[in-house]
Amino acid sequence: MKLDEFGLIRTLTARVPVTGPHVVLGPGDDAAVLEALPDERVLATSDTMVQGPHFLPETMAPFDVGYKAVAASISDIAAMGGEPRHVLIALGIPSSIEVDFMESIYDGVGQICREYQCTVVGGDVVRTDGPLFINTTVLGATSRPPLKRSGAQPGNLVFVTGYVGSAAAGLDVLRSSSITAKEDAAFLTAAHQRPKPQVAAGQIFSLEGATSCDDISDGLASELNEIANASNVRMRIQTQRIPIHTAVRNLARVRGTDTLDYAFYGGEDYQLVGTASPFQFARILARCESIGISVQQIGRVEAGDGVVAEFPDGRLDVISAKGYNHFAE
Amino acid sequence: MKLDEFGLIRTLTARVPVTGPHVVLGPGDDAAVLEALPDERVLATSDTMVQGPHFLPETMAPFDVGYKAVAASISDIAAMGGEPRHVLIALGIPSSIEVDFMESIYDGVGQICREYQCTVVGGDVVRTDGPLFINTTVLGATSRPPLKRSGAQPGNLVFVTGYVGSAAAGLDVLRSSSITAKEDAAFLTAAHQRPKPQVAAGQIFSLEGATSCDDISDGLASELNEIANASNVRMRIQTQRIPIHTAVRNLARVRGTDTLDYAFYGGEDYQLVGTASPFQFARILARCESIGISVQQIGRVEAGDGVVAEFPDGRLDVISAKGYNHFAE
Repeated sequence: MKLDEFGLIRTLTARVPVTGPHVVLGPGDDAAVLEALPDERVLATSDTMVQGPHFLPETMAPFDVGYKAVAASISDIAAMGGEPRHVLIALGIPSSIEVDFMESIYDGVGQICREYQCTVVGGDVVRTDGPLFINTTVLGATSRPPLKRSGAQPGNLVFVTGYVGSAAAGLDVLRSSSITAKEDAAFLTAAHQRPKPQVAAGQIFSLEGATSCDDISDGLASELNEIANASNVRMRIQTQRIPIHTAVRNLARVRGTDTLDYAFYGGEDYQLVGTASPFQFARILARCESIGISVQQIGRVEAGDGVVAEFPDGRLDVISAKGYNHFAE
Repeated sequence: MKLDEFGLIRTLTARVPVTGPHVVLGPGDDAAVLEALPDERVLATSDTMVQGPHFLPETMAPFDVGYKAVAASISDIAAMGGEPRHVLIALGIPSSIEVDFMESIYDGVGQICREYQCTVVGGDVVRTDGPLFINTTVLGATSRPPLKRSGAQPGNLVFVTGYVGSAAAGLDVLRSSSITAKEDAAFLTAAHQRPKPQVAAGQIFSLEGATSCDDISDGLASELNEIANASNVRMRIQTQRIPIHTAVRNLARVRGTDTLDYAFYGGEDYQLVGTASPFQFARILARCESIGISVQQIGRVEAGDGVVAEFPDGRLDVISAKGYNHFAE
């Protein structure tokens, strides 16, 4: 099936939600026109995934590529405590790729947009002689002061949503032939392929005065170090408190690896890590748990710098930011 | 020089304006935080340029790549009558490319941002095994009804800003060894490498009630057809009125090509084409000329469909939208 550029964009756009609140003019003209409400501020973030460094056909179906690319950007909006609203997609397409492959990517985009009440307001599809790439820009809004990395204070508690390390373990399952129970494999691969950004949690953090927040895209170690650096504090993490799913523990046992490696250095969980005073944390915990979002305290903020892990046997260790880094060599 | 991802982004970000009006929080956190003024609507557009289909090292220095990529998106905001404000950049970088090359791209981004009072509020740099690509998202704003493609009415005049065909002629100069006068070559290559989006003109069009507008990115033929289709009208163009620079005429004479081919099918001029009633057009013309922006009437809107060219000898011809199309084969 051959399509010209405009026909192709029409075909793809038909698969995603394009109308909704705050959209004055959707895709199809030179630029989208979006409503900004009084008292709100606009949040903007952009992410790019390239086949090769970021995903492989063996581990990510085209649907997953579309889903996860948008998830990564929605997660950035979540980490600011905002509401994601609008998505712009740019696809770089090798000539070997057929229209149905692009449609599947857009089906994934459409699925996550519907789950998070977002609309696709712009898109661009270009040819490339290189590997597939997808760039997502997500615009959001918040009427509250946005959560930053720089507000953590000594005496605050450190906490995370959900489980960490699951996405990295999922990638290991997809890449290897480790013996994994069926339900473990399903949980882990879903964590890798269809991560769920923690938008509701971010809004609760912001509403209840969390002092800092970051999403766990590059691994817990990396994000904790970012908050520590931006806030000029030390994060002291009690390793036995880190929420690691049984499926990850089972996989680590089978593979003879360290569960904490998944948790600290895995990345792509798109959970949130934040800090708040104990009083604020109690309110965050209550609100989150009341709507089914799990939040776990994993440590404390202290005067100092860096990230220190406290092991069950009392041993301490500095945790450096060696999460996934595209340019480390 | 080896840099990790965060170091690289810091180095690049230092070369572009990151603070300015409407920026609450610039690059460096999960998402940028931008001010939306009451009564304003947000405009959003995204474009991608890939080495190979969109530019070649022989015709575009890295500085030009950065400059032109942002120009393309600013031009979309101009075509809506808006004010461009914020830029997000995503670079896909082959491993062969050095940091100073990326710095030059960012210098080009910084240059156009300064020229148009835009700030860079986000960025992403990723590795690719394929050719260089750059994705730009530009956010803008307008307090007026945005200009669309769909409002042209029979009896309106059709007009364009500046000159058309210059960018395509510039590409020919860069790719061939045609004998060109030095000043002609300088004008034409600048038109190709450093196009100037018509932001002020777009705002005047919008203020004075132009009925439709589009930027000339895919060639005048293509954009006229888009307006005709979206508005359900016919555009009747008098070819001798189309503003074509002497340098283009000279080049066409040397190469034995048709000047009108550059004008109709060249693309990438990033001028604006619009429609308005004769009364509105008179006001647009006066306002534009008073600040040094040239606007030229090139035809009329009629009942009917498509685009018809009227030649000096009275001959009529249908002009199809065969401007540059990435997926035409």
